[in-house]
Amino acid sequence: MVNNVVRYGIVGVGNMGTGHLHTLLSGKITGAQLHAVCDVSEARRETLKKEHPDLHVYDSASSLFQSGTVDAVIIATPHYDHPDEAIEAFQAGLHVLVEKPAGVYISQVERMNRAAEATDRKFGIVYNQRMNPLYKKLKELVESGELGEIRRTNWIITNWYRSQAYYDSGTWRATWAGEGGGVLINQCPHQLDLWQWTIGMMPSRMRAFCQFGKHRDIEVENDVTAYVEYPNGATGVFITSTSDAPGTNRLEVCGDRGKVVIEDGNLTFWRLRETETEFNARNKQLFGQPECWTISIPVDGTNPEHAGILQNFTDAVLHDAPLVAPGEEGIRGLTISNAMHLSTWLDDWVEFPLNAALHEAELRKRIAGSKFKPEKADAQAQPADLSGTY
Amino acid sequence: MVNNVVRYGIVGVGNMGTGHLHTLLSGKITGAQLHAVCDVSEARRETLKKEHPDLHVYDSASSLFQSGTVDAVIIATPHYDHPDEAIEAFQAGLHVLVEKPAGVYISQVERMNRAAEATDRKFGIVYNQRMNPLYKKLKELVESGELGEIRRTNWIITNWYRSQAYYDSGTWRATWAGEGGGVLINQCPHQLDLWQWTIGMMPSRMRAFCQFGKHRDIEVENDVTAYVEYPNGATGVFITSTSDAPGTNRLEVCGDRGKVVIEDGNLTFWRLRETETEFNARNKQLFGQPECWTISIPVDGTNPEHAGILQNFTDAVLHDAPLVAPGEEGIRGLTISNAMHLSTWLDDWVEFPLNAALHEAELRKRIAGSKFKPEKADAQAQPADLSGTY
Repeated sequence: MVNNVVRYGIVGVGNMGTGHLHTLLSGKITGAQLHAVCDVSEARRETLKKEHPDLHVYDSASSLFQSGTVDAVIIATPHYDHPDEAIEAFQAGLHVLVEKPAGVYISQVERMNRAAEATDRKFGIVYNQRMNPLYKKLKELVESGELGEIRRTNWIITNWYRSQAYYDSGTWRATWAGEGGGVLINQCPHQLDLWQWTIGMMPSRMRAFCQFGKHRDIEVENDVTAYVEYPNGATGVFITSTSDAPGTNRLEVCGDRGKVVIEDGNLTFWRLRETETEFNARNKQLFGQPECWTISIPVDGTNPEHAGILQNFTDAVLHDAPLVAPGEEGIRGLTISNAMHLSTWLDDWVEFPLNAALHEAELRKRIAGSKFKPEKADAQAQPADLSGTY
Repeated sequence: MVNNVVRYGIVGVGNMGTGHLHTLLSGKITGAQLHAVCDVSEARRETLKKEHPDLHVYDSASSLFQSGTVDAVIIATPHYDHPDEAIEAFQAGLHVLVEKPAGVYISQVERMNRAAEATDRKFGIVYNQRMNPLYKKLKELVESGELGEIRRTNWIITNWYRSQAYYDSGTWRATWAGEGGGVLINQCPHQLDLWQWTIGMMPSRMRAFCQFGKHRDIEVENDVTAYVEYPNGATGVFITSTSDAPGTNRLEVCGDRGKVVIEDGNLTFWRLRETETEFNARNKQLFGQPECWTISIPVDGTNPEHAGILQNFTDAVLHDAPLVAPGEEGIRGLTISNAMHLSTWLDDWVEFPLNAALHEAELRKRIAGSKFKPEKADAQAQPADLSGTY
């Protein structure tokens, strides 16, 4: 690092990459400077050179990694490419912040995680929803024991509305070969991460029901209901869709000591005066119920989103600050996503740890039959306006 | 009928029967008079004779049916007995209002329905939640097309809290031999009925996950998650529990033209300006979303509950008023309940119409292994205070 500044490069200046470019150029991230970008599209490179004459512009990730112009890279290429590029960046001695999802299937993400472990470089993932004060507070309530042992998690996250026009905007979109999935791999990675991160628990087994091309002409899933069981006996449901309108975003977590609901930007906390277990053991009344307090609880601040993640990652590189979203944890949400696909394909239960080889074999069948052929694809000409997503 | 009055008899003056007794004696039901009761418990009969000297008190349903003292009976005995008693009452020329559930398994309820069909007597079921203005309004919105084609139904109904003290209050409670099930057969019949009644659609197949004796020392299910698919491609989830505290009661129904949520005694209606299908067909914007209006909609009145059902049934007998809850429809919610058991027992999908014989065979295995032995049971001495339930 020169003068206590992290020199960043962005790999892939498409939709998300352009967002990071603007954030870094805004000067809001203390200790961060954007020095270089790379993109496979010549048209996009020309535009970048014209608009940002001070930036180094490369035509490949490798050229950027080997250039010596950056200390850290943000990988914002198509999902399938994240792991290989991260591994190459680590080998070039760079810090890596990878966009979500960590990858498309487990073995490639395990390779990436092993490469991260073998270096002293920082490894982060852009799970900016971990900066959201609502989910941070829920996690804190669980960790501090305020909710008691977790008993149930229900997430209805059906407000990922995407029209056919969205799906038609790129030939790679919503294809097995291009994206490796639909709503689970593209829209839901944040929620799939938060679902396990807030409660600190992965499922022990799952039965999922994906529907492919529901109300849309696409080959991948865009309507999913999944039922999970946890090692402690708790159960959970995750429901998502891109064709419900208006959708819902409501997370309910019930514990031995109460319940939290996050919906419409609010967190509501109902807390039992004693645990349900204690009440049940001593109660003699036929219709007795534990005394329940409705708690008004401070949830301060707004979600700093991508800027928050970039600042945290920069602070980690410069000052060894703890990462809010360590890259190695990207495998967790991805595993849940892979499990939802596999359970549907097998029409059966899947157990955790997931049979990653079986998932990958099944995925490869879908890739082989995919209507998207990567070798024929043109790189998308210009990034989309992503103001409607996060 | 004498003087345009329906003379009622109550079969089984336990928990629910006592409620009906008080309602009928209150004089609030126009055209209804309570004339007789019967109960197998001698202690209870003595109490009834002392407290209500004007009532005929019988020691068996048959004696009551044959007495000539009543025109109609309310059957409020244990679940298993409902169908046989209803059949005998029809054969005695009586009108029958049966408590929920209609019975415990399908073949016995089919026999009851055939007996009802073979008479000109009225047949009703105590689905008093069909009188609830919230669910009536939802049904009306669906029937009038305001919601469009149904796409999703999610019901989280986990506020059926029951402590161990409740389960310990009767040896028959929460046993396969005594009740034939747990939360599905005892607490949820209203919701299982409303789930299909409001949308006018039964599932086409189901995958359910019952947990037996969850946080309670009982042999039947008290924690259930069920996933259903409907003939039109819609999906749904039903989640219930007796050990969550505080529980949730939130029904969400999404259609091609909007969404309704019923929670906390309120109905919220979001209506799309055009159907999602129409919007999706014409939209060209990458992140375009259909215009959605939040609708404030009048939902008038309170739920007249049991009094409402009793008045409606009386009006049906006297004036041929249409029944809000025809007895024949009791089989629908019961079929959904049976399906949840069977899918869990088989650990597999179940299709509708349900394989009733397979369900019954599986149920009989559980009855054979049940810790409750009906022949050894004492009739419960006194009815419980049911003010905490409905």
